[in-house]
Formats: sequence, C-alpha cells, structure tokens
Amino acid sequence: MSRITCPALADKVTSAEDAAAHIRPGDNVGMSGFTGAGYPKAVPGALAERIGAAHERGEDFQIGLFTGASTSAELDGALAEVDGVSVRSPYNSDKAMRAAINGGEVDYVDTHLSHLAQQMWFGFYGRLDVAVIEVAAILPNGLLVPGSSVGNNKTWLDLADRVILEVNEWHPEAYEGFHDVYYGTRVPPHRNPIQLLEPGQRIGDPYLRVDPDKVVAVVRTNGPDRDNAFNPVDDDSKAMAEHIIDFLRAEVAAGRMPESLLPLQSGVGNVANAVLAGLADSEFEHLTSYTEVIQDNLLALLDSGSLDTISATSFSLSKEAAERFNRDIESYKGRILLRSQEMSNHPEIVRRLGVIAINGMVESDIYGHVNSTHVLGSQVLNGIGGSGDFARNAYLNFFVSPSVAKGGKVSSIVPFASHIDHTEHDVHVIVTEQGIADLRGLAPVPRARRIIDNCAHPDYRARLHDYVDRAIARGEGRLHIPHLLEEALSWHVSLRDTGQM
Amino acid sequence: MSRITCPALADKVTSAEDAAAHIRPGDNVGMSGFTGAGYPKAVPGALAERIGAAHERGEDFQIGLFTGASTSAELDGALAEVDGVSVRSPYNSDKAMRAAINGGEVDYVDTHLSHLAQQMWFGFYGRLDVAVIEVAAILPNGLLVPGSSVGNNKTWLDLADRVILEVNEWHPEAYEGFHDVYYGTRVPPHRNPIQLLEPGQRIGDPYLRVDPDKVVAVVRTNGPDRDNAFNPVDDDSKAMAEHIIDFLRAEVAAGRMPESLLPLQSGVGNVANAVLAGLADSEFEHLTSYTEVIQDNLLALLDSGSLDTISATSFSLSKEAAERFNRDIESYKGRILLRSQEMSNHPEIVRRLGVIAINGMVESDIYGHVNSTHVLGSQVLNGIGGSGDFARNAYLNFFVSPSVAKGGKVSSIVPFASHIDHTEHDVHVIVTEQGIADLRGLAPVPRARRIIDNCAHPDYRARLHDYVDRAIARGEGRLHIPHLLEEALSWHVSLRDTGQM
Repeated sequence: MSRITCPALADKVTSAEDAAAHIRPGDNVGMSGFTGAGYPKAVPGALAERIGAAHERGEDFQIGLFTGASTSAELDGALAEVDGVSVRSPYNSDKAMRAAINGGEVDYVDTHLSHLAQQMWFGFYGRLDVAVIEVAAILPNGLLVPGSSVGNNKTWLDLADRVILEVNEWHPEAYEGFHDVYYGTRVPPHRNPIQLLEPGQRIGDPYLRVDPDKVVAVVRTNGPDRDNAFNPVDDDSKAMAEHIIDFLRAEVAAGRMPESLLPLQSGVGNVANAVLAGLADSEFEHLTSYTEVIQDNLLALLDSGSLDTISATSFSLSKEAAERFNRDIESYKGRILLRSQEMSNHPEIVRRLGVIAINGMVESDIYGHVNSTHVLGSQVLNGIGGSGDFARNAYLNFFVSPSVAKGGKVSSIVPFASHIDHTEHDVHVIVTEQGIADLRGLAPVPRARRIIDNCAHPDYRARLHDYVDRAIARGEGRLHIPHLLEEALSWHVSLRDTGQM
Repeated sequence: MSRITCPALADKVTSAEDAAAHIRPGDNVGMSGFTGAGYPKAVPGALAERIGAAHERGEDFQIGLFTGASTSAELDGALAEVDGVSVRSPYNSDKAMRAAINGGEVDYVDTHLSHLAQQMWFGFYGRLDVAVIEVAAILPNGLLVPGSSVGNNKTWLDLADRVILEVNEWHPEAYEGFHDVYYGTRVPPHRNPIQLLEPGQRIGDPYLRVDPDKVVAVVRTNGPDRDNAFNPVDDDSKAMAEHIIDFLRAEVAAGRMPESLLPLQSGVGNVANAVLAGLADSEFEHLTSYTEVIQDNLLALLDSGSLDTISATSFSLSKEAAERFNRDIESYKGRILLRSQEMSNHPEIVRRLGVIAINGMVESDIYGHVNSTHVLGSQVLNGIGGSGDFARNAYLNFFVSPSVAKGGKVSSIVPFASHIDHTEHDVHVIVTEQGIADLRGLAPVPRARRIIDNCAHPDYRARLHDYVDRAIARGEGRLHIPHLLEEALSWHVSLRDTGQM
C-alpha cells in the first residue's frame, strides 16, 4: 500500500536528483534529523553530487545547513566531503563535518537545541529557503506522519519557501500516533503559556502540516537510520551510574525527591546508558522521562516496567533495538511521545517539571565550570546540544565524565576549564568513577576541595590541591575564586605540546 | 494612624535589640532587600552589635545571610564589619561585605536571582531559621503591605521558622496595591503554568501572607532606603545608548520587532540609565518594561508618557527620585507592579514575553563569552544578579561596557575572558562606545573579527587581530575557536603585575 495517498503530493513524486535540483547555491536549508534518526536518506547525497559537479565546473555552490541535531555520514558527511556547507547549526557528530569545522572550512554556530527554531523565526540566519524533511507517510488530506524524530521539522516546514519530502518506508506506518506536534508556538509578543503538566501529556497534533503548494518534490526511500551502537557498560560507567543512583536514593530519603523521582533526562552516551541500566535493576518504579533522545536502555527501562512514560524528540537506537522497536511498535503506543525539540527542551517545561538532568562533559574545572564541547578550548566535538536547556532549568543536574582519559594522561578535573558551556551557577553535581561532588549551596573554594577530593583521579589530586593552596597564598583580596592566571591553562598547554597534562 | 492594626501582631512590637535576640549562632536568615530598597533598617544593626559582643566574649556567632539582592551598609556592611556572616547569597554590592568575600572570610555563593527561592525550597542550603522582612504596613487581618521591594520575601516568610517584621513608616501607606505576589508557586512535580501574558497583568495578591504564630517580633522604623544616586550621563554612556537605540530602530525597520518594541529589561547602571534617557527622547511609544529594578530614568520614561507599564521586583532610586515618588505615589498606581523576583526574572515569562535585555559587563572575549562578575577571574564585584535569567531567555540581548577602563590601561575586549558568566551561546550583541557587534547567527571567528572591529578600542584592535591571526596560523585542526593557550590569559597577568594590559 502506498505511503503517499494525497493526490496533490503523489503527483510530485520524483527522483532524489530531480528533487536536489530545487536547492540552489547560497540557500539556507533546514533538514530533518536528530541523533542520527529521521534524517533524509536520499536528497542530501544527490545534492552533494550536484555540488561536487558544480565545483568541478568551477562554480560556487554551498548551502547553510540547519537540522534538529546530528545526522549521519549520508547527510553531514556527504555534504562536508564536497565542501558543500558554509554555515552549520545547531549540532554535529559526523566525523567529516567535524573535521571541516575544525579545519576552519565551515562556520559552525553552536546553539542550544531549544533556541534554534525560535532564532530562525526571529531572523537570526535570514530566510529559510528550503526544507528537506523525512516522514513515514503522507495521509490523503496531506498531513504528514513523522518517523523516528521530530526535531525542528515543524519550524522548517512552516518557514521554508520550498519543501522536499522524503517518505521512508523503513519507518513503520504505525508511527501514526507517536508524535505530539505543538502548533501553539508564536513569536513575541503573541506567546501563550504552554499547558503541559506531565511528561506523557498531549498538547498538540499527531501530524506535521505542510502547505502543499510549497512542496516541490516528494522522494520515496527505504533505508534505516544510523546504527547508534554503543559500548557495553564498562566498570567506570557502572561506578558512575552507581554514584548517581545512590545519590538519588539519598535525596528521596532526605525528602528532597518523590519516591518515583522526577522526570529523567539523560544525554547520549555510555554513562547515561549505564545509569538507565542501573535504574532498571533498582527499586525505583513509576519513573518518567522528559528528555531529548530515546537510547536502547531507556527503551529497556520501559520494557522492564520501571518506567511509565517517555517524552523525547528522537530515537537514537542501535540497529538491533531499532529493528525490535519497529517490529513491536504497537506495544509502545501511548507510552512514548515525540515532540518538537523546542518543546522537549523548553526551559519553561523543564523548570516546571523539575527534570533530573544527566549529561556528559569533557572537563570540569575545580570551581565547577563545565566544558561540554571543546578539546583544548578550540577543537569542537559535537556541540552543546540540549545540555544547557536542561541543566540550567533542572531540579537537579549531574555532569559526568571518567576522571581521566588517554590512559591517565589527561585529567577531566582541571584548574581552569579551557572552554565553558555551563557556568558555576548552573552546575549541581559532578560525577566521575572516583566519586560524586555535591556542589549545591557551596561557595567556590569549598567546591574546589570537594571536587578534587571526591572526583579527581588520585594521581592528580595533590597537584590540584597545590594549585588551590598556592592561589590562596598569593591571592590577597582576590580570594573568591583564587587562581594563578599564568598557570591556569598550563595543563592544557602541556597536553597540546607533550600529549599529557 | 498606626501602621500595625492587627491586634495579634501589635502585641509583638518590641525593640530592634529584643528582636535580634531571636537570631542565634548558626541560623540561616532570610532578609528582605533588593538593590538597596526594602531591606530591614534596624534589626541587622542590632544583630551586628549582638554578634560583636559575643565575639568579644570569645563566642562563635555567625549567620547564613540570604536576601533578594543587594542591601546597604546598614545590613551587609554592619554584619560584615563584625565578621557575622559565614555564607552569603545571592548578590552583594556592599563594600565591606565585598572585601570580606574577596578576603576569603565569607563564603559567597553567586546565584541566578530567579533560582535562589526555589533552591531554598529544594533544600540546597538546609533550613531557613529566621526571616527579617521590612513592610510598609500590617493590616487588621494580618496581611502585610510590602514596601519598595518584594524580592524573595514571600519565600522567606513561607519557609522561616521564626519571623521578625520591620514596619517602616518611611514607605507610604499608599504602597497598597502596587504589588503582585504570586502564591501559585509549587515544588515539582506540582508546578503549573504561570498564566502571565503581559508585563502589567496581575496574577497574584497585593499582599504578603505570614502565619502570625511564627512572628516573634515586630519592630517600628522610619528610615529611607539607600540613596541610589547615579552619575550624570557621560559621553561614553550616551554613545552606547545611541548605538542600542539605533539598533532597535533597525530591527523595527527590518520587521524583526514591533513598533513599540518588546518589554525592556535593563540592569542597574549608567549605561542603562542613558538608554532609558535616550528612549525618552526618541520616537518610540507605548513601551513596556519587564525588569528587576526601577531606576530614576525608568520612572522618568513613565512620566514622559513613552512607557505604559513597568513590572519589576524593586525600586533603586536616588534620594530625590524616591522622595518625589513617595509624594506622588498615587499617580503611579496601576502602571507599576512589583513582583517576587522568582517571577520578575522567571525564564518561563522572560522567554514568553520576548524581553529585550540590556546588561553591563566587565569584559567580553573576542568570541563573545561574557564576564559580568570577576576582576582578574578571582575578585568578585557584585555577582551575576539577574543577567543570566534575562540574557538566556531574551528575544534579544545586549552586553554593554566602555571599551577601556583605567584611562585606557584595561581593555574590556580580551582574548579570553578571565571568568565566564554568559557563554557564547547566550550573547547576542556586544556594545561599547566604539560601536556595536551583532553576533546573531555568526560562528566564532567571524564573531571575533566583528567584535574587534566594532567594539574594541582602536589602541587594542591590532593586538587582538594579531592574536586571532596567530591562533589561526598555529591552530591546525583546532580552528573552531582558535586560541593560543599560553597567551590567552596573558593580558590579565600583565594587568595584575603591571597595572595595564
């Protein structure tokens, strides 16, 4: 049975190549895709070929590329390899695109994931010329059934002058009913309160809307999302997960948290995965999740019966988990909602619900400033993602990293963070495999002592305490956040020049 | 006519000394006061005497001190001088208290002004033992008429075990009706949307409530708020104000802003004052303000007819303006509302209304990371205040500073900020007397070029460009935010050691 049952749109079915011909040099293009799910599978490659051919003819051809979050080698990778992107936002994890950004060839604008949609409405990036959006089906009335992510698709469809749809049959048709697309957003001064009170509540529509007159092409595809495989839980991740779960237990015991906790958000990665596995083995039940991304173990937590509801904007599953989910999708209906990332990450909702936010980091300095994004202050990894949306507005937040990297040559606790994404005001708890530092209510110097004692690797503790001691000894009248400015970044200089801190 | 007409509370009238005797060593004390308005005038001094006497007897006596924001020499100053404070939050501008913090004697916890109330509810600081709250009057039914600020008073009154009230006859009784105290706040998971849609809308009560059984003392006072005198508008401030107003004009012309703009927030200080003066002389009308603080020129803007409504949490007026306001208070009724600082600074409301945020800074680095708080990364000035609440959630934000300080010896545009309060993701526009740098939609390197060209003082431009040039030349594979880590903080080292950058 066809997935494209709207006559006006069925007439526009064409090849990826013909569709890509609607994208012109200099266009701002909004594409679907979030954590390797729901990105267009065919048009980006055809566009990359078109761009490559233009470059061979000596013609300029680059686009501004805006997505939900990360996509895949088929999208970011293909376009980076032909030098096809001038500006990229808000998040990228593709290797080739990352190399282009760190090579100074692509202007990457790191952006809070809840901010990009409104910034496009506000005109920060100029017009949006084209949207390329993957969906699971087009209904007879022209409504679109989204697939494995929603991301910024509503905004791209609303704002773009021209729309290209990819209908991917790999997504089950039974995705219908899994989405909650809120059409109540407005630009100030016309905004209203968002009447969302719990993670599983519907406030919008199950469908994306598109003006059929704007649709210039519809392309059929049938291909899987990126395989978001992850490592098995290692000892360090397990230790960090145990610290967090013990901490939550103590919060419940102290009366600072309900027995079923508060809605969980967890960034993508091994520690988050381990925390979710740990929760499945714990006494906690009737948990909920208000998060960006559904990883394997979040789905497993739902399967285990400990978790009642998930609100997210995207899946990010391994190949096996995705196949299992697609097969058993009916059994998840009513327990999972995918929303626009503006809503999944909205400060208003995150603060109201009192989310527990668990996010990874590159490093924390001794005073609790967290670097989530840049190695040596300069080389971007993926971007801030939603960590700022969640951490700033969370009831309780955790920033998590192994205490060392590169076999002990790099400490993730440093005197001065080489880049700061989360300031001291926004960081509640630091976690490494060594232990956990509760910074709530602490001034900078007591914070430093606790982070060093509880979280730094033993090999680095003495040097870190020595830094604080000497900064205090020499810091007369500047003792709020004592620093030795000539040494503050010396650990990073050493890492850059010698390969170790 | 008495200001204390509730019989149960009239019975508790006593001296400041007797009231202060209810405060014990180790107590956490929540006091009223925001930008030198509405702080208790008598009990803090009596408490300082009590603490001083205890110290003379060789006894320990310190308190944890929590306010709305800054108070005055009579409160922070008096307590700092007797070494009476162990922990201080969220904001201080008193000289003696600042010296004690930078001397390492007081643990100062810098906190977003919208966060402290909820953090106290969440238990970040333990119990709140005592509240000391200044009001304008106590009604027969025990309801409290607030005075010139609301700040965290609702929360302190709700949470404290024991309450001391100061009734200050200097505040006009006609303050009744100027306040909007929202009693709908809850702790997650019991929170609801805040149904506020425009700056002047009432969502709460005109009064503060207190359980009369908790009130241990009532003290009568009659004294003015701190004189928040400011400098006359100088040429630099005028230039910055003109840059901002021209920028807003261009935003309106480009269709990115309504003709009456969006609600204005401005931090305290000379530039903010100049912007407000500039707006009074401009073509803009039907302006509104959703802000923390009402300065002289915001009141003048209301007087001029250009501004329709102000929502704030506090006044911060010069002696003359305060006297004039107190005399003419009736004429302002219905045009000014004072809310709890949780509401005046609430991320949910700031984002919904689309506030235009104008805040001062110490320095910005070339990539747009802003330091609002610390000289040389270590010495705190006042604290982050509400700048983070507003900037992160604003429709448009400006960070403002003269391009140089100390007669040109210090540049406010530096290679690497020595402390970061607002990350690159949260900073839209940088303003100095030299010009304005619109960073919206720009990646780091283009941001650096624009900030240096438009905002840095000409004496520092070549050196700053040279830093970027050399960082790019040496930064192979690390070109997203190019830095020379060994030089990044060298300007600050030089300032510390030689008095100039």
